[in-house]
Amino acid sequence: MSKIKYLLIGPPLSSQKLGERRLNKIRALAAFSPDALSSIAYANQEIYLGLVIAGSAGLSLSLPIGLAITGLLVLVALSYFQTIHGYPSGGGSYIVARENLGTLPGLVAAAALLIDYVLTAAVSLTAGVAAIASAFPVLWPHRVILSLLLLGIIALANLRGLRETGTLMAIPVYLFLFTYLPMLAYGVVRTLIEGPGSLVATAPPAAQPLTAFMVLHAFSAGCTALTGIEAISNGVPAFQPPQTKNAGRTLLVMALLMGLLFVGSIGLTQLLAVVAGPQETILSALARRALGNGPAYLVIQITTMLILAVAANTSFAGLPRLTAILGTDGFLPRQLTNLGDRLVFANGISLLTIATGALIVLFNGDTHALIPLFAVGVFLAFTLSQCGMVVHWQRGRGGGWRLKAIFNGLGALATGMTLIVVGVSKFAEGAWITILLIPTLVVVFLRIRAHYREVAQQLSLRGLPPALKPSPRPRLVVPISGIHRGIMDAIAYAQSISDDVTAVYVELEPGAGQHIRERWEQWLPDVRLVILPSPYRSIIGPLLDFLDQTDQQHNDGQLATVVLPEFVPAKWWHGLLHNQTAWLIKAALLYRRRRLGYQRAIIDVPYHLRR
Amino acid sequence: MSKIKYLLIGPPLSSQKLGERRLNKIRALAAFSPDALSSIAYANQEIYLGLVIAGSAGLSLSLPIGLAITGLLVLVALSYFQTIHGYPSGGGSYIVARENLGTLPGLVAAAALLIDYVLTAAVSLTAGVAAIASAFPVLWPHRVILSLLLLGIIALANLRGLRETGTLMAIPVYLFLFTYLPMLAYGVVRTLIEGPGSLVATAPPAAQPLTAFMVLHAFSAGCTALTGIEAISNGVPAFQPPQTKNAGRTLLVMALLMGLLFVGSIGLTQLLAVVAGPQETILSALARRALGNGPAYLVIQITTMLILAVAANTSFAGLPRLTAILGTDGFLPRQLTNLGDRLVFANGISLLTIATGALIVLFNGDTHALIPLFAVGVFLAFTLSQCGMVVHWQRGRGGGWRLKAIFNGLGALATGMTLIVVGVSKFAEGAWITILLIPTLVVVFLRIRAHYREVAQQLSLRGLPPALKPSPRPRLVVPISGIHRGIMDAIAYAQSISDDVTAVYVELEPGAGQHIRERWEQWLPDVRLVILPSPYRSIIGPLLDFLDQTDQQHNDGQLATVVLPEFVPAKWWHGLLHNQTAWLIKAALLYRRRRLGYQRAIIDVPYHLRR
Repeated sequence: MSKIKYLLIGPPLSSQKLGERRLNKIRALAAFSPDALSSIAYANQEIYLGLVIAGSAGLSLSLPIGLAITGLLVLVALSYFQTIHGYPSGGGSYIVARENLGTLPGLVAAAALLIDYVLTAAVSLTAGVAAIASAFPVLWPHRVILSLLLLGIIALANLRGLRETGTLMAIPVYLFLFTYLPMLAYGVVRTLIEGPGSLVATAPPAAQPLTAFMVLHAFSAGCTALTGIEAISNGVPAFQPPQTKNAGRTLLVMALLMGLLFVGSIGLTQLLAVVAGPQETILSALARRALGNGPAYLVIQITTMLILAVAANTSFAGLPRLTAILGTDGFLPRQLTNLGDRLVFANGISLLTIATGALIVLFNGDTHALIPLFAVGVFLAFTLSQCGMVVHWQRGRGGGWRLKAIFNGLGALATGMTLIVVGVSKFAEGAWITILLIPTLVVVFLRIRAHYREVAQQLSLRGLPPALKPSPRPRLVVPISGIHRGIMDAIAYAQSISDDVTAVYVELEPGAGQHIRERWEQWLPDVRLVILPSPYRSIIGPLLDFLDQTDQQHNDGQLATVVLPEFVPAKWWHGLLHNQTAWLIKAALLYRRRRLGYQRAIIDVPYHLRR
Repeated sequence: MSKIKYLLIGPPLSSQKLGERRLNKIRALAAFSPDALSSIAYANQEIYLGLVIAGSAGLSLSLPIGLAITGLLVLVALSYFQTIHGYPSGGGSYIVARENLGTLPGLVAAAALLIDYVLTAAVSLTAGVAAIASAFPVLWPHRVILSLLLLGIIALANLRGLRETGTLMAIPVYLFLFTYLPMLAYGVVRTLIEGPGSLVATAPPAAQPLTAFMVLHAFSAGCTALTGIEAISNGVPAFQPPQTKNAGRTLLVMALLMGLLFVGSIGLTQLLAVVAGPQETILSALARRALGNGPAYLVIQITTMLILAVAANTSFAGLPRLTAILGTDGFLPRQLTNLGDRLVFANGISLLTIATGALIVLFNGDTHALIPLFAVGVFLAFTLSQCGMVVHWQRGRGGGWRLKAIFNGLGALATGMTLIVVGVSKFAEGAWITILLIPTLVVVFLRIRAHYREVAQQLSLRGLPPALKPSPRPRLVVPISGIHRGIMDAIAYAQSISDDVTAVYVELEPGAGQHIRERWEQWLPDVRLVILPSPYRSIIGPLLDFLDQTDQQHNDGQLATVVLPEFVPAKWWHGLLHNQTAWLIKAALLYRRRRLGYQRAIIDVPYHLRR
């Protein structure tokens, strides 16, 4: 076990090694942008799928919708630019909402963020696999398995303590930028020379007439292009000084790149009148159209897959950090705050892996099915964070606070309206799950904190007399299955800690007790032996009844302690060959404790078998 | 839990209710024959499937093959008739082989029988479901689920303590006889009036030419018609006196009925030139041909399903009894000898259910795929039992022992030759699994007995001095996570049983220990507190090292006892909210015990949380 763990996860790291390297802008862009940049992969796909049912009339609207989303992007980017300056120590939505709006809005933001992190991982992984399966159609039916495989690799890397700030992570990001942007430029140049394509000629016939709802729907789905834009504002302390200035500039560059990639790819798709086949993403169809089927196309698809994998990885950096903060605040189990021996929040990583894997399996590895769950959480967190910033400026009343508040207010308004559009238009397709899940999570958070407070009160030493009242010598009950060396050892141990020892034999076969008593008198004449009849051949029932009765008889305010002689077999499979009576008795005491709310002390006395 | 158990399984029964009713011949036939009579359902099917690939030329051989198998049936029936007289107390193959041939052949027979019981259940269930799915083709794709459902019902009924001697079990058997035999008679009369059909006209074209191997193959598969014939010889004590005479006569009647049903149905199938469709059994095709598609046909199919279910039930009576005998002899875990509170061997029933369910799932609910595994075990047990009888007569040298030995010898020869034919012709199709499994089981039996003997020797009190040397007062180590009421209780308990108490605090964050020590001095100044540093943030490692070190320092021949203060939460889910440190420490001690071969005593001291 521990060898396997060592091999997979690596040797433990000392607490001294904690502490972060500071990032320059080039590295910081690579560290914080993968989610934001790669979201064009699924956002474009969603806009395409939302419009293609209305044929060429629908598809011709993709560029206007793309431009509207880019407008939203500008507003949100400016809002977060302000957040960076307002919260130089890192302003995640949970912190901003909790500090400025109160606990409840903070928890709503936290719930939305948790859901977002899981969905970012699931959506990025499935979209990455779709990119590579577009290039190799033989992989298309195996997308679920491939997504889970990729998930497993990323989870392991994170359990080992992968830093999202590493050079390895930067390669896919810059590879993506330096292949995608030239491809878009090349496509535009070619179109200028060859003339644009005609959607009327290539688009499939309209299955439904174009409706306003359909346009809203495509807009909602396309808004997922904005996911990840908040990442830099959470990570300001990781920048080299001057931190806020560097972070702000990096945010603006990232937003510019996002807009360029998004509008560029949508525009080129429309110009070239690209349409995708049934087992292909629209971005793959675009790349194939622009570059042909050669190695250049393959490089694009592999790069897309890699940046999406890195984007999924950002969840593995973000969620465990958030659950650790929530755990410290008492809203989630404290185990989530444990730094593992590789200095990572291993429990949070495991939690994220399980949730993401479940989503991939439940939604059959289909990005399109996951998207409706996604956008609600993202825009809820955006809106709460922007509202929080408005209150923040208002409270601080620093220089030009009114203008700053207006900017963030505009952002809140835009993202809030988008939230309503997304919630309504995607409700039936899956947004209801997120809408239901967020208040559920908030209730769970609150109940967990209530429990911790209750326990702290019960454990408090306040009011306890300073001198400990000594406990009475315990009454010991030793259930025996016969008379052998293991029992002798257990009785000797019991006698060494108390002078009130009773052995109990449950007689399964009538008459067996007599034989036991005779041998007992011979070997242990000075220890009390009680023989309990058991007409229904149960060991547990008569034993528990006996314990309860003697407790009542003594009425000394204590429960008898059970001493269990336990075999320690030399090989694990030998355990299967013995009546697991000790185990059964423990299980019965545990079960009873759930029913009656009390538990007696239990002493395990091992007896070692040599072979 | 216990309420659900009560509802499904019923209230416990007192040991006094054990004891069997004696059966008259009518009831005994119903009790012991279902497996034997119903085996025509799959034997016919196998002969048909084996021959139909050679078209009409193949199918025309089904009657001669059927007659050869009937000849074998006569020999085996006479052999078992003798066994009844030689072993009036019940002569299962295991007992006969073990007593006369030695332990090893006995264990081989036991292994073969165990496999047979499981396969009887699996084959009967899947064949029963195939019978009903032939009538209702919509059920055909759901045969696995239906077989498992039927298995579940039978398992539950047996856990409740269903007696195979009950009236309920007799109904399907006589219903089967009183519908099948008239149908065969009616078919024969109709053929005499209308004239026979022509196989050349109805049979599908030959896919392969007829070969001698194919004939041997069909013969081997058809030999499964003999399964269950040994049942009466195992159950002689259940008959009314004169037991051997009644049992012998019942065996002869049963063999006669088996032969009649087998030859009758095969002969009529050939006379009417019946051929089955792809989703139908040959017996269903025969009934449909003889009786049309009306209610009479449906009655036949339902009756077939019912008798096959009852046949599967005979495994539930037989296997738990055999595993209990093997458990008593020390060849299987002793838990298999426990009579549950409903007076049944519940562990054996559960084992059979799991194994049968696994077979049904693995072989996709397909009787035909299971048959090759089946016949080897059956004929191996037959042969060993007959050989044992030869030795039995030879040793006893009673009146006419030579003739009796010759009869059983002939039986052994015939079944032995069949065993070889079956083993060779079905080897590649699955017989190899059984051939591999039997020696594996024998090795497992022997290793289990060796272990029990070893343990008995280690536990023996022989050589122990009559006066118990008192154990020294134990050294107690109490790991603490902080200072609160739960810890106070645990320390008080520890002080009540020993004056050597050490509290241990593992310091996960540098500096935390200082704070603990200050509060400790205030509340428990007279208890020793040790603070252990933990640079890798592990609680377990430093604690285990400390325990080992102090054991070495004291060198008093004892291991320190670990006292674990344990939370007892009021609601089960609260358990998830606390660091399961007590549980982790126990797991670590258990793991270490496997590695190092020793275990210390552990004391669980509960602390109850009220809400």
